[in-house]
Amino acid sequence: MDSARWVYGFEQGDGRNKKLLGGKGANLCEMTRIGINVPPGFVVTTEACVAYLGDPERRLPDGLMDEVRARMVALEKQTGKFFGGSENPLLVSVRSGSAMSMPGMMDTILNLGLNADTLAGLIRQTGNPRFAYDAYRRFVQLFGKVALGVPDELFDEEFDRVKARAGVRTDLELDADALAEISKRFVEVVANHTGRAFPSDPHEQLELAVRAVFNSWMGRRAVDYRREFAITPDMADGTAVNVCTMVFGNMGSDCATGVGFTRNPGTGENQLYGEYLVDAQGEDVVAGIRTPKPIAELEQDLPANYAELVALRDQLEGHYQEVQDFEFTIERGTLYCLQTRNGKMNSAAMVRTSVEMHREGLISRERALARVEPTQLEQMLFPRLDPAHTARSVATGLPASPGAASGQVVFDADRAVALGGQGTPVLLLREETKPEDIHGFFAARGILTSRGGKTSHAAVVARGMGKPCVAGAEGIEVDVARRTARVGAEVIKEGDVLTIDGTTGAVYRGEVATVEPEFTDSLSTLLEWADARARLRVRANADTPEDAERALRYGATGIGLCRTERMFNAADRLPIVIDMIVAETAEARAAALDRLLPIQRADFAGLFRAMAPRPVTIRLLDPPIHEFLPDERQLEDEIARLQDLRGAVRGLEVMADAARMEPGMDLPASLREAGDTRRLDALMARKELILAKARALREVNPMLGHRGVRLGITFPEIYRMQIRAVLEAVLECQREGLEIDPEIMVPQVCTVQEIMLVRAQLEEVRAEVEAEHGVKLPCRFGSMIEVVRACLRAESLAEVAEFFSFGTNDLTQAVFSFSREDAENKFLPMYNERGILQDNPFEVLDVKGAGRLMALSVEWGRSVRPDLHVGICGEHGGHPASIRFCHSIGLDYVSCSAPRVPIARLAAAQAALED
Amino acid sequence: MDSARWVYGFEQGDGRNKKLLGGKGANLCEMTRIGINVPPGFVVTTEACVAYLGDPERRLPDGLMDEVRARMVALEKQTGKFFGGSENPLLVSVRSGSAMSMPGMMDTILNLGLNADTLAGLIRQTGNPRFAYDAYRRFVQLFGKVALGVPDELFDEEFDRVKARAGVRTDLELDADALAEISKRFVEVVANHTGRAFPSDPHEQLELAVRAVFNSWMGRRAVDYRREFAITPDMADGTAVNVCTMVFGNMGSDCATGVGFTRNPGTGENQLYGEYLVDAQGEDVVAGIRTPKPIAELEQDLPANYAELVALRDQLEGHYQEVQDFEFTIERGTLYCLQTRNGKMNSAAMVRTSVEMHREGLISRERALARVEPTQLEQMLFPRLDPAHTARSVATGLPASPGAASGQVVFDADRAVALGGQGTPVLLLREETKPEDIHGFFAARGILTSRGGKTSHAAVVARGMGKPCVAGAEGIEVDVARRTARVGAEVIKEGDVLTIDGTTGAVYRGEVATVEPEFTDSLSTLLEWADARARLRVRANADTPEDAERALRYGATGIGLCRTERMFNAADRLPIVIDMIVAETAEARAAALDRLLPIQRADFAGLFRAMAPRPVTIRLLDPPIHEFLPDERQLEDEIARLQDLRGAVRGLEVMADAARMEPGMDLPASLREAGDTRRLDALMARKELILAKARALREVNPMLGHRGVRLGITFPEIYRMQIRAVLEAVLECQREGLEIDPEIMVPQVCTVQEIMLVRAQLEEVRAEVEAEHGVKLPCRFGSMIEVVRACLRAESLAEVAEFFSFGTNDLTQAVFSFSREDAENKFLPMYNERGILQDNPFEVLDVKGAGRLMALSVEWGRSVRPDLHVGICGEHGGHPASIRFCHSIGLDYVSCSAPRVPIARLAAAQAALED
Repeated sequence: MDSARWVYGFEQGDGRNKKLLGGKGANLCEMTRIGINVPPGFVVTTEACVAYLGDPERRLPDGLMDEVRARMVALEKQTGKFFGGSENPLLVSVRSGSAMSMPGMMDTILNLGLNADTLAGLIRQTGNPRFAYDAYRRFVQLFGKVALGVPDELFDEEFDRVKARAGVRTDLELDADALAEISKRFVEVVANHTGRAFPSDPHEQLELAVRAVFNSWMGRRAVDYRREFAITPDMADGTAVNVCTMVFGNMGSDCATGVGFTRNPGTGENQLYGEYLVDAQGEDVVAGIRTPKPIAELEQDLPANYAELVALRDQLEGHYQEVQDFEFTIERGTLYCLQTRNGKMNSAAMVRTSVEMHREGLISRERALARVEPTQLEQMLFPRLDPAHTARSVATGLPASPGAASGQVVFDADRAVALGGQGTPVLLLREETKPEDIHGFFAARGILTSRGGKTSHAAVVARGMGKPCVAGAEGIEVDVARRTARVGAEVIKEGDVLTIDGTTGAVYRGEVATVEPEFTDSLSTLLEWADARARLRVRANADTPEDAERALRYGATGIGLCRTERMFNAADRLPIVIDMIVAETAEARAAALDRLLPIQRADFAGLFRAMAPRPVTIRLLDPPIHEFLPDERQLEDEIARLQDLRGAVRGLEVMADAARMEPGMDLPASLREAGDTRRLDALMARKELILAKARALREVNPMLGHRGVRLGITFPEIYRMQIRAVLEAVLECQREGLEIDPEIMVPQVCTVQEIMLVRAQLEEVRAEVEAEHGVKLPCRFGSMIEVVRACLRAESLAEVAEFFSFGTNDLTQAVFSFSREDAENKFLPMYNERGILQDNPFEVLDVKGAGRLMALSVEWGRSVRPDLHVGICGEHGGHPASIRFCHSIGLDYVSCSAPRVPIARLAAAQAALED
Repeated sequence: MDSARWVYGFEQGDGRNKKLLGGKGANLCEMTRIGINVPPGFVVTTEACVAYLGDPERRLPDGLMDEVRARMVALEKQTGKFFGGSENPLLVSVRSGSAMSMPGMMDTILNLGLNADTLAGLIRQTGNPRFAYDAYRRFVQLFGKVALGVPDELFDEEFDRVKARAGVRTDLELDADALAEISKRFVEVVANHTGRAFPSDPHEQLELAVRAVFNSWMGRRAVDYRREFAITPDMADGTAVNVCTMVFGNMGSDCATGVGFTRNPGTGENQLYGEYLVDAQGEDVVAGIRTPKPIAELEQDLPANYAELVALRDQLEGHYQEVQDFEFTIERGTLYCLQTRNGKMNSAAMVRTSVEMHREGLISRERALARVEPTQLEQMLFPRLDPAHTARSVATGLPASPGAASGQVVFDADRAVALGGQGTPVLLLREETKPEDIHGFFAARGILTSRGGKTSHAAVVARGMGKPCVAGAEGIEVDVARRTARVGAEVIKEGDVLTIDGTTGAVYRGEVATVEPEFTDSLSTLLEWADARARLRVRANADTPEDAERALRYGATGIGLCRTERMFNAADRLPIVIDMIVAETAEARAAALDRLLPIQRADFAGLFRAMAPRPVTIRLLDPPIHEFLPDERQLEDEIARLQDLRGAVRGLEVMADAARMEPGMDLPASLREAGDTRRLDALMARKELILAKARALREVNPMLGHRGVRLGITFPEIYRMQIRAVLEAVLECQREGLEIDPEIMVPQVCTVQEIMLVRAQLEEVRAEVEAEHGVKLPCRFGSMIEVVRACLRAESLAEVAEFFSFGTNDLTQAVFSFSREDAENKFLPMYNERGILQDNPFEVLDVKGAGRLMALSVEWGRSVRPDLHVGICGEHGGHPASIRFCHSIGLDYVSCSAPRVPIARLAAAQAALED
């Protein structure tokens, strides 16, 4: 193209050059170029806009208006109409359009070219004065407003006066005379406000319109929008002006206007979809005053045009290789396409069209993969609220685990089990949850808490289980004792039904309809294609055989993280774990661990069976052990209660003694039982022991405390038990004929000496178990990389570890010095709002900080061990942008919660495609 | 030297080749080479040892014994004595000696060569059978034990029998016959134990001794020692064998033996120093049976030899250019030097000798700087316990702030002020300290706590003030209510005197004598030389004008860190700070800040005046604000007490009403006063407000919480006040004619947006103050680098910050994911003990982890701003190894607490010398 040119006819412009012609203009050129019947027109380039705005005196570039006038002459030739002609007048629309879609730019001006002469011509031509006056008054108002800056209110006042005089309420009821009157008054309004007559020269109208479009680029809303979304001049600079011949769908019964989708955007079905109105304007379809008809009926109304429409559909999809959302108008039997763009669809439709369009040969497999946004798949994987619902939320918390659920509110885990066990859908509502609530999670449909962030116990456990969770809904005040909660003035009683939306954080009263997820055949197919294309493998974080089976269904290639502490938290194990913690001697601790060993072995065997022959990565115990103990205040309260009880019992004993002195009297059984003081004393002693331990273990900063491998080295018998349980489980499964691929990894590593000690322990236990059973047992050994120092010592760790697994949750906390629990409740939302941080780094991996460290660490680690296997098992492992980054730094796999596996598979494929 | 040789005569060996000849052997060769009268001898090389140990059959290397025999022949020629000769027999000593000094190697064998023949010869030659038999029995026992493995007890038993029969208690009382008897029995003991006759052939004795020395290299203690201290083969591999002619100081009154220092090791004075005994063996000087005489007296006893000794002293110092600690023996009028090594001295002596030896032209200035260990200077900077004290400690805590102090124990800060104000020396003893105790720190000589680590409030504040502190002495149980503490069974009452040693952590009952520090002229001189040589500048961390003045006296070139929160903690400010924190509106907060502004301005002006024209770096508020509030439990208790009181008062009111009903009665004034319920209610309301705020601000991990710049951005009015206070203080001082060089730095930065916001605030306030006063104000702007992400984003931060200051305390916590408070109490000691970490990374900068990150960050930062000024203000800034590292990565300055400034100055010079 000639760079000195400011104007391109639709038939001249390069449809790919959106930067020069704007998105809308380029598309109009493109459609014209491929022979689609677009009303003739032309585009004034963005370069003209930039030149105009760059001139301090705001002169239009030399030659611009000459080119425009030349194009108008060409338009007259093409259409046989005359701009400003009183016979067969040519009217045009004027629209803005920059390289990127951007709200806040100029409104469309329709019907430009009208004045007293052309209006008369239009009336003559159409024989429809009402149509003509309506077109005129619309033009005067829009032009007055957007090109001349006349406030809308001034027009509205006049309009209301005329309606009042006519005694009508809506425009539709006004006749041609009334509309003529309105047009007249509008022209006066403009003259009064601007102090000049309304411009009647169509060329002057056009020049003013072009200037108005250009100026709108620097309008307040447009500038703010570009700043807000960081749209820089290299992305879009200046706006184009699209000038297009008017066509009318409201000139009679051989006219129509409508919108179409080349495929059904709700289902993806390969059928023309849309709606239309005969003898109507585009506005009418949108306004909803008349009900549009399904597009299939056009076959009866205007059969020839319908056939053209079907052909148009094929042509559009064939050309754009994408589902199109287009607008059309039929003017006196001629079909015009006014606009087309890529169709927005729900995820099921996106997936189905991807698969089908590829099978139809329309798009490549790569394109089929690339066009689906991975996070969109969430819709297909979690139940969600019916998009049509109109319920209003009563409270809002953090969207802690996606999906929607309804159920009767219960205030504790036991009640959840009691009610849930009978099949009643229940929601567990707690101030915050603790490990001892875990059985309640299994029984409930969803979890709602009034305190805690996205990393609270409730949030993490719910995400792991794939159950919806809203956390930290601070408006809700829970009163467990009274079995009620308050939200403002409202009271929620146990048994009341609530609905939570874990995808948005909203809480509703009553049952809101939900849509169940559907793992369609199309999705399976698409994800198979994704796997074939991806380099990154996708594993799942799973702690139970059920988790593992679900992960398999979702296509996981292994388990990347099994958190053994989850197993410790189950109701039947916690007392043993507490015994282990409060043990005063190594023997007592060993005794507790001996009881845990068969349980852990069974846990691991269950996982191995579910996943065989895929790899399963077991992480040794990570959290500080005080997390397994009840809260100190709670213990203090319980002990105080027990002391009261003990006092009461002592009173009973005195009474009993007195009673015994009365001959023939005996104590009632209940009293005798309550009086079992030994049992009470034992209970109190145990609570006091636990309290003392809890106090001794208390930490100022538990996140940075005595946990992970530090704990494993302090109490080697714990890791020894876990290692033995893993190896014996491998043995058990191998004897069943299964092929097992186990990996053990060590959490919180910061120095190579730590993993050397644990590795030595592994080899020792392995030698023992192998000798006991006369077998050889496989087991790879690796290190979590979640401490900054582990990244910095990667060369040395890689000498001992066969694989690295980035724990990006903890790593992010350490890189930012943000405690997630504190940050998300205190300052992080403010940081995001003020743009100090673009994203929440606990959701979107911080590529510039944490990511830089990860990249260095991978490079350093592989410099020592070139085949070092590296993965990520933090929550970021399930987020597309983070997955893309993991791919770019050469990781081998990502591991995420089971429900995010499909999302990760698609994201992994897209990452590979971008290479 | 010829590598095929296994043996070197003292006159042949290269005195610098300690690896080949061992330290001792090299020194003997060196002295021989420079003409000092060393008894003739030779060295079997470490290479021979390695060859021997490398042979599976443990054969001596080919030719070794031939060379040894040849050397013995040469010795005979040199001495005119005969090895194995019955006339004038040649006796030798055999010693081990590797490249590094190492305990656990072989004991010395003396008098080798004795047998029945040579013994007779020795008797004849000396005419002293008792001397000869004593020499013989010593040889047999030592040889039996170390060369033949005969247990000591077997010899001791025989010895005791003979003594018993003779009816004496000590060896000295035994006559020649008894010693002859003992020798005979010892020879039998060896024969019985080994099943072979005691080797009488001197050459066989010598070969066995050489093998024994070689074998001792692989002895258990030696191997353990090398492992413990990580001595690798490239540092020392194998041991040499030193064979040396025996000389005797106990052959008569023309004989003597002694030890000498070339200068006084206690004061550094340039005078020959040492002690000797006439007619005695080396053992006798050490054994303490006879009292040695001061060396000056030798001038009377043996004037010629004394003159030789003075000459020897000059020669040794002249050659070694170091104070020497040497052993000598005078055998029949001939002076022999048996050994020399660098003299160990206290710090004052080291400093004085450094300065004087340089002035005498003996050593270069570089050597004068290099030979003083920087940490040794602590002795000269803090009061310390008299080294001669014999008190036994009653408890031990962490050495939290160096120095020693005695005083009466007080249990709270008010009492410390009351008593300390009267001039009584007091020690503040608390379970742990809080900001509200700060006035007690000023009043006390030292601080002792029973809880908390080296980073506890007590420790950090005491270090800042340079007061001794022992923290976390867990054996002490404090009972503030009863004004007592218990240590085991002992009770410490208020007013009892204790002494603490903050350098070791020991706590003593009663007053233990202390030695006051002395900043000598020599030290000043040495440190001036250091400054001239160092590239790194040394600044001080100081929060008050007093701190600043002390820092200046210690030679600080500026203040690298002023912690403004310390100012908030002072007793007169804390209530205002609390008002600011609990403020419910921006106005209320502004009102509190308005009251703080003049106080802060005065603080800063004081610092500026003290340091002008040197730079002063002010760090804006850092800690989470809940640190300024009292403890939640304490508040709860206080509120409960107030509620009780309120109840009691209500009772009084009822009584008062009743009383008023009695005509003529009136309430006592005290009752009326106590009944002022409005005051009580107001107090309670305030406490409840503070408690509510404390609860709202509570954090799970305060170390990673809402603090530093995060706080500054949340409450911009706080930083605004501080910035204004700085600038107004600059203005005030400038008007006094002072030149001020202020710097403002921002804590806890993790992203450039944060410092952009604060910098904008600085510029805004600066413009305001400049406009108000019509002046221009200087102020550089920088960022703390203490968050890992700040290191990783160094390029981007360097675009906005003019300087970086590494906060290595917090950075180390984040790099390790160790909370210092938790780690030092829980697992860090175990990690050090087991060698998982070599050092406590909070004391010695972790060069491999945190250091690697710092180095990258400096490089990245300077890639954008080549003149980026970079320093360190964590505690590591005062530790020599860390300072060396800071030098190596190109930092511009270190900043440490005032008392460590001299240490840092010397360390900085040494770092430059090593380049």
